Amino acid sequence: MKIAIDGMGGDNAPVAVIEGVIQALKEYDNVELYITGPTEIINSELAKYTYPKERITVVDAREIILPSEHPAMALRKKKDASIVKALNLVKEGTCDGIISGGSTGAFLAGCTLIVGRIKGVERPALAPLMPGRRGNFMIVDVGANVDCKPSFLVQFAKMGKIYYQKIFGVKNPSIGLINIGEEEEKGNELTKATFKLLKEEKGLNFKGNIEPREIPTGDTNILVSDGFVGNTALKMYEGAASSILGIIKDEVINSSIISKLGIALLKPVLKNLLKKFDYKEYGGAPFLGVDGICIKAHGSSDAKAFKNAIKQTKIFYENNVLEDIKNEFSIEK
Amino acid sequence: MKIAIDGMGGDNAPVAVIEGVIQALKEYDNVELYITGPTEIINSELAKYTYPKERITVVDAREIILPSEHPAMALRKKKDASIVKALNLVKEGTCDGIISGGSTGAFLAGCTLIVGRIKGVERPALAPLMPGRRGNFMIVDVGANVDCKPSFLVQFAKMGKIYYQKIFGVKNPSIGLINIGEEEEKGNELTKATFKLLKEEKGLNFKGNIEPREIPTGDTNILVSDGFVGNTALKMYEGAASSILGIIKDEVINSSIISKLGIALLKPVLKNLLKKFDYKEYGGAPFLGVDGICIKAHGSSDAKAFKNAIKQTKIFYENNVLEDIKNEFSIEK
Repeated sequence: MKIAIDGMGGDNAPVAVIEGVIQALKEYDNVELYITGPTEIINSELAKYTYPKERITVVDAREIILPSEHPAMALRKKKDASIVKALNLVKEGTCDGIISGGSTGAFLAGCTLIVGRIKGVERPALAPLMPGRRGNFMIVDVGANVDCKPSFLVQFAKMGKIYYQKIFGVKNPSIGLINIGEEEEKGNELTKATFKLLKEEKGLNFKGNIEPREIPTGDTNILVSDGFVGNTALKMYEGAASSILGIIKDEVINSSIISKLGIALLKPVLKNLLKKFDYKEYGGAPFLGVDGICIKAHGSSDAKAFKNAIKQTKIFYENNVLEDIKNEFSIEK
Repeated sequence: MKIAIDGMGGDNAPVAVIEGVIQALKEYDNVELYITGPTEIINSELAKYTYPKERITVVDAREIILPSEHPAMALRKKKDASIVKALNLVKEGTCDGIISGGSTGAFLAGCTLIVGRIKGVERPALAPLMPGRRGNFMIVDVGANVDCKPSFLVQFAKMGKIYYQKIFGVKNPSIGLINIGEEEEKGNELTKATFKLLKEEKGLNFKGNIEPREIPTGDTNILVSDGFVGNTALKMYEGAASSILGIIKDEVINSSIISKLGIALLKPVLKNLLKKFDYKEYGGAPFLGVDGICIKAHGSSDAKAFKNAIKQTKIFYENNVLEDIKNEFSIEK
């Protein structure tokens, strides 16, 4: 398979991107990579390594879209941006998928405008995987669609199900609707209407409303919500984890030598905890519903994160997730 | 001052309610308490203690509204419920405030329907205080209003400011709008319109959009949002804290004797952490914008939590928070 990589996307680009690419070439067969960016910069990074030259193609791109820029406007103006070039490689069929660690806004807009939606999909959705206490969970959507209709969320559930089934081998993943109460009549206009639709869908293992307090247990595989609420849940989770570990640290600094010894002895446990919360282990977030394999890598991705995103793209491809999503919605139409 | 207490509200009622009342009588002067509930049950609980009889009045109420009941419907049918009787004591002017650990839905609906809104307030809002890494923060609203207009959120900010100023003595508390991006143009229709309004308000220390990731730092005193997003943030915070401590526990159980020793040495630190996250320390959540001091205690409140809710009601009263909110909105009208 062929993957387009935005060589200039992310805080650590192009260094981390290229290092991840080299690691991926060593570990995975049957992957060819197209890297977009200023040829001289990309090539001078590549020159640091020995690798099978025939598996890498550098595609010249002279511009970069920054996260601070207005996504749609920047895409229109900067035709020569590394992300635009990478998206075009998917659109024209040269590549099967794209990975970018750059501006999320530009990535989402670019996937929708350049790669295009799958026929029958109303709105594509960003669906990252997160670590829970008893298992990982996925939230669809975390920010691509801030104002949603109930029918969008039903499609998020269907796309999430196919991805989760294929990627994690879970036969009938459980699906919950993020809501502020368990009962059917709880919530806002959107969740009340969505609940009714989800309940009537055959083929979905719908568990009903899930209160955010229950999400981090990991007991429900897929959580659907509008992108505003999903983003709030995701970022509150990250923020809480960071603050709680911070509070422990603060307490230890201000405490007795005994507590300091305690934390030293707990290092392996805390290391496992941090590993569990390390997004680099999980690759990137798939943008489901667009007509290509589009993976958003974290902005602060390092080489390992990019390598794992390549692995994820490969699994996505080999399991025909895209075809399954297309079939799902072509039946609807 | 006189406070009405829903004697049957909460998982541990009436035992914990009465115990908290007795503790409060010992600690605080100038407080008289009216307890609603079946007289024989309340009196038999009170009989366990010695206390100044003239400071407690028991008001008979034969019914209880459960959290599973439809709030408005239950309020209409159960005129003799302990919460209804307590709300009426405020409405008729016998009491200055009410505390209930019962059904949140019935409490919010009852405060609005029976006690009534302050003139000029579009929607009252529930505003709990939460522990952050560098300070406590308040979210307005966390569930009273799931579908909001921008003007509601501006009022939430104004009411939150008055409460925070008066209760915590912070002269000009910082105010943030919960949003999925920092920039002004980010967010959904509601936040974009609200940002514009808040920016133009004089007298508010508006810091702009705050991403949920930053909320737990405690660097912003007051966060405004619609009740759905606020509730999601609150419950995700609680859920994350519980899951992270759970993961540490799981890891320790499955780990070496050295880790177990480490956690034993860290006990004082973890105890402080748990204390920081213990809602019982913070009293209850004020329901701002209704024409009385209405405090929602946590459903699982124990005696200490009820005692602290009484303390909080007293501070609310002695600092004339209600009058200040009334003045704020009477100027507007």
